Amino acid sequence: MAVSHLPRTSGRLAIIAGAGALPHHVAEAARRQGEDPFIIALSREADADWSGFDHATLAIGDFAAISKAFAAEGIDRVVLSGAVRRRPDWRDIRPTLKTLAKVPSVLRTLVSGGDDAVLRMAMDLIEASGARVIGAHEVVPGLLADIGPIGEHTSTDDDLRDIEAGIAAANALGTLDVGQGAVAIGGRVVALEGAEGTDAMLARVAELKADGRVSSRRRGVLVKLCKPQQDERADLPSIGPSTVAGAEAAGLAGIAVEAGRALVLERPAVIETANRSGLFVLGIERNARERPR
Amino acid sequence: MAVSHLPRTSGRLAIIAGAGALPHHVAEAARRQGEDPFIIALSREADADWSGFDHATLAIGDFAAISKAFAAEGIDRVVLSGAVRRRPDWRDIRPTLKTLAKVPSVLRTLVSGGDDAVLRMAMDLIEASGARVIGAHEVVPGLLADIGPIGEHTSTDDDLRDIEAGIAAANALGTLDVGQGAVAIGGRVVALEGAEGTDAMLARVAELKADGRVSSRRRGVLVKLCKPQQDERADLPSIGPSTVAGAEAAGLAGIAVEAGRALVLERPAVIETANRSGLFVLGIERNARERPR
Repeated sequence: MAVSHLPRTSGRLAIIAGAGALPHHVAEAARRQGEDPFIIALSREADADWSGFDHATLAIGDFAAISKAFAAEGIDRVVLSGAVRRRPDWRDIRPTLKTLAKVPSVLRTLVSGGDDAVLRMAMDLIEASGARVIGAHEVVPGLLADIGPIGEHTSTDDDLRDIEAGIAAANALGTLDVGQGAVAIGGRVVALEGAEGTDAMLARVAELKADGRVSSRRRGVLVKLCKPQQDERADLPSIGPSTVAGAEAAGLAGIAVEAGRALVLERPAVIETANRSGLFVLGIERNARERPR
Repeated sequence: MAVSHLPRTSGRLAIIAGAGALPHHVAEAARRQGEDPFIIALSREADADWSGFDHATLAIGDFAAISKAFAAEGIDRVVLSGAVRRRPDWRDIRPTLKTLAKVPSVLRTLVSGGDDAVLRMAMDLIEASGARVIGAHEVVPGLLADIGPIGEHTSTDDDLRDIEAGIAAANALGTLDVGQGAVAIGGRVVALEGAEGTDAMLARVAELKADGRVSSRRRGVLVKLCKPQQDERADLPSIGPSTVAGAEAAGLAGIAVEAGRALVLERPAVIETANRSGLFVLGIERNARERPR
């Protein structure tokens, strides 16, 4: 996917911020690009200190208040960033009549949708109110993983077998809209990421090795892929320095992420952590049968 | 699959016993069928008290000693039962020259095989020494799940959506030889079973609900299926009273297992626990689109 830096527009950029380090990172990077981002921190999710930015704290389902903030601040572009751990319940959703008329599937989606369906619904609701939803990587250049090694270490032929096993599992999970990550050790997938997230999955792998239920003689690889059908404007898989630290604690040899469809947060710290711990971090193509260089 | 009770033979039955309650249960049931089973308790795996049975404790990879025991005891049928948590490393394997000649793929399998490949290899090695490998359900009648409810509660239409989501995920995992279980809540798969096992996955779901990362307003279903390509003589998915207790602790509505290809251990206790906690336990067909009755 080509990453084009968007032309400056007359309107203001909003960042709807969930949990984790990503939203603050995106906001700071956007400021360095000359933007003056307005932050909508999601209550019960956003955990960064937003005192240095214009911001409002709103409930995730309160589209009426979010639309009002968009109008008051002249928002024309919106980035969704960070994790939303608590899925909105239909009782929490306050759509406007205008957005609800445009998005009749909203209730059905909230009742039965996977993460992708909920995200698409949120994006439809936002766009129904007039702003455009764009990806964080369209605001912050250099956020996407490139193909090849990130850092000084690279994978061995043994790791390649784990990468392939992890790709097969992550693809199957992604097609089912279940998750994005898997850990393979010795060519065998030992852990699959569900709602618990990558950090918890890596902690589980560390426990499995400590218990002897997975051989600690073999290292293994974390693979994170974008779901095949995923809207790239939201919820791209991401890794950061804590992911590298979790992989090191699990005794893994490295991390493989989908080039062009995964975010590398705090890249200098990722590289520094990976180099120090001897782990590789590799951008891969989903269907690559050749070893990336 | 038709379950035929095997005709009595002149030889003795051996049970190669891994971890958990299943092997002892099978041994006692076999004795009730008039067998005098000889137990090979796997060192570092078997955790039951085998003092009431003729038994030997041997290392999982020590096929030379296992073959010798077969010959000394006149073993003609072997049941593999219980979990093998620690996969044998190639350094632990001591095949005989005779078995190794018949099973040239042994080293390759140990290096790269999934659970199924390792099991098939173990069965090939055993059969190369002259005994026949049979399923636990061929010795113990009534061990397989039947189709329909086991216990007094049954599933609702809401549960059916979770069952279908769980079947799709468990099928995908099984095809990849990764695992047999998944938990779906509100139509969405939230946890997938890897090397950690069902009990640990259920504990994770309980945590996800306690954290609010998964809504605790919806209940959910545990689905366990046999892997599509699985040899039914070994490692059929199983549930027991502790599975029901774990599902109850995770706030689930019930458990669905594959009829004819999953074991229900201690069935009276499973029924009693399920009835008391209000959970359904249901035997399902893998591809059933109709609601089982």
